[in-house]
Amino acid sequence: MKTSAAIAALISLSSLAGFSSAVTANEPTSETQPPNIIFMIGDGMGFEFISAYRYAISDINAGKLESTPFDELLSGAATTYPDDNTWVTDSASSATALATGVKSYNGAIGMDADKHPQQSIMELVRDKGWLTGAVSTSQITHATPASFFTHHPSRNMYNQIADSFATQRDDGRWSFDLLLGGGYAHFNREDKNWLPELQEQGMTVVTEFDELPGLNQLPAMGLFAPIGLPHAIDDQPRLATMTEHALRLLSEEQHDKPFALMIEGSQIDWCGHSNDIACAVHEVQDFANAVAVVREFQQQHPNTLLVITADHSTGGLTLGRDGVYEWLSERVMGIKASVYVMSKALAEMPADQWREYVTPRLNLPLTDEHWQPLMAAAEITDAEEREDAIHAALVYATADLTGTGWTTSGHTAVDVPIMATGPHAEKFRGYMDNTEIGKQLLELVR
Amino acid sequence: MKTSAAIAALISLSSLAGFSSAVTANEPTSETQPPNIIFMIGDGMGFEFISAYRYAISDINAGKLESTPFDELLSGAATTYPDDNTWVTDSASSATALATGVKSYNGAIGMDADKHPQQSIMELVRDKGWLTGAVSTSQITHATPASFFTHHPSRNMYNQIADSFATQRDDGRWSFDLLLGGGYAHFNREDKNWLPELQEQGMTVVTEFDELPGLNQLPAMGLFAPIGLPHAIDDQPRLATMTEHALRLLSEEQHDKPFALMIEGSQIDWCGHSNDIACAVHEVQDFANAVAVVREFQQQHPNTLLVITADHSTGGLTLGRDGVYEWLSERVMGIKASVYVMSKALAEMPADQWREYVTPRLNLPLTDEHWQPLMAAAEITDAEEREDAIHAALVYATADLTGTGWTTSGHTAVDVPIMATGPHAEKFRGYMDNTEIGKQLLELVR
Repeated sequence: MKTSAAIAALISLSSLAGFSSAVTANEPTSETQPPNIIFMIGDGMGFEFISAYRYAISDINAGKLESTPFDELLSGAATTYPDDNTWVTDSASSATALATGVKSYNGAIGMDADKHPQQSIMELVRDKGWLTGAVSTSQITHATPASFFTHHPSRNMYNQIADSFATQRDDGRWSFDLLLGGGYAHFNREDKNWLPELQEQGMTVVTEFDELPGLNQLPAMGLFAPIGLPHAIDDQPRLATMTEHALRLLSEEQHDKPFALMIEGSQIDWCGHSNDIACAVHEVQDFANAVAVVREFQQQHPNTLLVITADHSTGGLTLGRDGVYEWLSERVMGIKASVYVMSKALAEMPADQWREYVTPRLNLPLTDEHWQPLMAAAEITDAEEREDAIHAALVYATADLTGTGWTTSGHTAVDVPIMATGPHAEKFRGYMDNTEIGKQLLELVR
Repeated sequence: MKTSAAIAALISLSSLAGFSSAVTANEPTSETQPPNIIFMIGDGMGFEFISAYRYAISDINAGKLESTPFDELLSGAATTYPDDNTWVTDSASSATALATGVKSYNGAIGMDADKHPQQSIMELVRDKGWLTGAVSTSQITHATPASFFTHHPSRNMYNQIADSFATQRDDGRWSFDLLLGGGYAHFNREDKNWLPELQEQGMTVVTEFDELPGLNQLPAMGLFAPIGLPHAIDDQPRLATMTEHALRLLSEEQHDKPFALMIEGSQIDWCGHSNDIACAVHEVQDFANAVAVVREFQQQHPNTLLVITADHSTGGLTLGRDGVYEWLSERVMGIKASVYVMSKALAEMPADQWREYVTPRLNLPLTDEHWQPLMAAAEITDAEEREDAIHAALVYATADLTGTGWTTSGHTAVDVPIMATGPHAEKFRGYMDNTEIGKQLLELVR
């Protein structure tokens, strides 16, 4: 299995990095020793995305499911509604609920409905001398990581969020010890380049992914793309690798302090917005591999609490559609590129080359019914409209030919999974509101 | 609250029926005393149906969710795929998995993929002298109850399934002690009327719902409709009341024997197939009220294991659609009839009366966009096509105006909730396959 091999490789890498030498260094939790907190958020990862991933990596003909790193961990489900006269949350409101325990409006970054800043779990543990960090496949200034470290009335204030990250607090330390993700365009922009300044002040900054293994000092930022990282299906998956290095840098062997780390699989949501099933499954796979890395770390460092949830579900994904009792997982796994990348490429290419480009990437038995909307898109002269029409045609083909249903380009209000293991995991069982997850984490540390 | 009042009324009725006198009669489980088993199946009740129910009974302006009887019980999630070269199960295959612990093909009733009968939990406990029963809002010959008591190669063999229920086993007893639901058309049909014969042999048979409180003797059958019972939204909800009387008849005060009871909320699925959101929410509400009745019984009889799950999810329900971040629960709860009943009524009524009929039942701000497909349906002369077109138009209006998404008239492959409480509940935690739920139940008793 590709997955298992990837996990095995990462685990082996983890061992080389020194994790295995610490088997007995950390005895199970005691009342006096606060646990490390690892909070993983699958952005948009409703139950249906986990079902899709599990079926996608399994062989329908073998009649047996592959196991996933989620299987031993499921403990409950969370409601996600915002304080905004709607039941459907966005990522900012939900991340604020998870980070601070407070309901807020859609768009809020670490602020309540009255736009008052709320203390996050990261801020609380930092005040107690812990190390803190975040890993994300989006820009690190995006709603989810931003809500754990900053306070802004709108998620769209990317540059101001970058400024918050870059500015030292009153005690002369930054609000974080480690950030890994995308977003250097928000730190190095026309009106301001924070990066040299940060380095002068003692921050290690890297911007190439292959510099990550050489990163050996905190505080540090790794910004590996102008905005978000590439989709896992289009490039190397990066979340599991970033997670492994974050744990290496934050672990007690290095610092003798507990740490809190937020790890976000950001692009499950993006592929959901795009109604792109193959893209989504590969993002869940990357997230699952990151979970496996954390679990291996937890084996060596038992005084580590792992809580996993999603902020909401995205796209209205369903496995099966139009009255047909099938979801064609083999076809999903045969798709080799994201709809986003394929749409961009087709939009810039003469239409007579489309068939040659699309055929080996989709690997689907396209019929006239699927080519016709593509050919219609080719006639559109406005560049943006043309790309949108290509995108819609590719979504139609992939959804129709794999038996995948979608109902929205946005989010839905369905409850999302909670998973927990390690000390105090019993506090994250059954149905909970997303604010209760945040409150329980804060309560643990207070 | 209407819900709370209904539950309170049922609980109060339970007390009058003698439940409250047994507070200390049954001490918590011991190794030597097998627990009663109550297995509740919400047919089609994926997580999204529970989310819909919770939001539907809550007031979006009050900013606080109502609690549900599910909230304390969630313990895991189940995969549901059949042994049929597809990931999407039907109710027969999934009920067979839950009843016997064995995967089978879609359509199988208590048989494996080679059409060999498999022992069900009901058959196993009956052999050990327990009482057994089933409560269902569908015909009692439908796939879910049938798979717990009979063995047939196809779910469509309703009359043969009725014959199996009606025929005494070799030991001179029937395969059940109590059946409550619909389906007398399968027992009293042109070629055979089982009912007088069953009564002569000692079975109590009632066919009027108001005879249920007077039912005082086992074995007994209550068949309250020719096929399925009416939808809860169109008539009195019946599942919670049938559950209360089933527990009264089966409880140890009466018999000094343990019992196993399967309770199915059958029509969550039917409303899902119909893509009828208001209908679905009312069925979940009836199921939730039945859960509350069981929980009250369990308080008085702590040696009772309650396991709740769904066989699959239906309809591809999503809360939110078309890029809009809302699901309008107040509108859902304003709808006063099922799409099924409204479609039938409109099909038999002159089109100039439709507006008057529909307006107070839908309570929705219909626009020309919603009336146009209805008016087009009115022009159709073929009666069946006309009714189908009316149905589709009402589904479009209710879904569009409440923000509800649907992707299929069939089932989907998404994982479903598991809930458990009482002795041995810890065996039903985390991700499990549906066969594992059946196996764990069988293992408890063997």
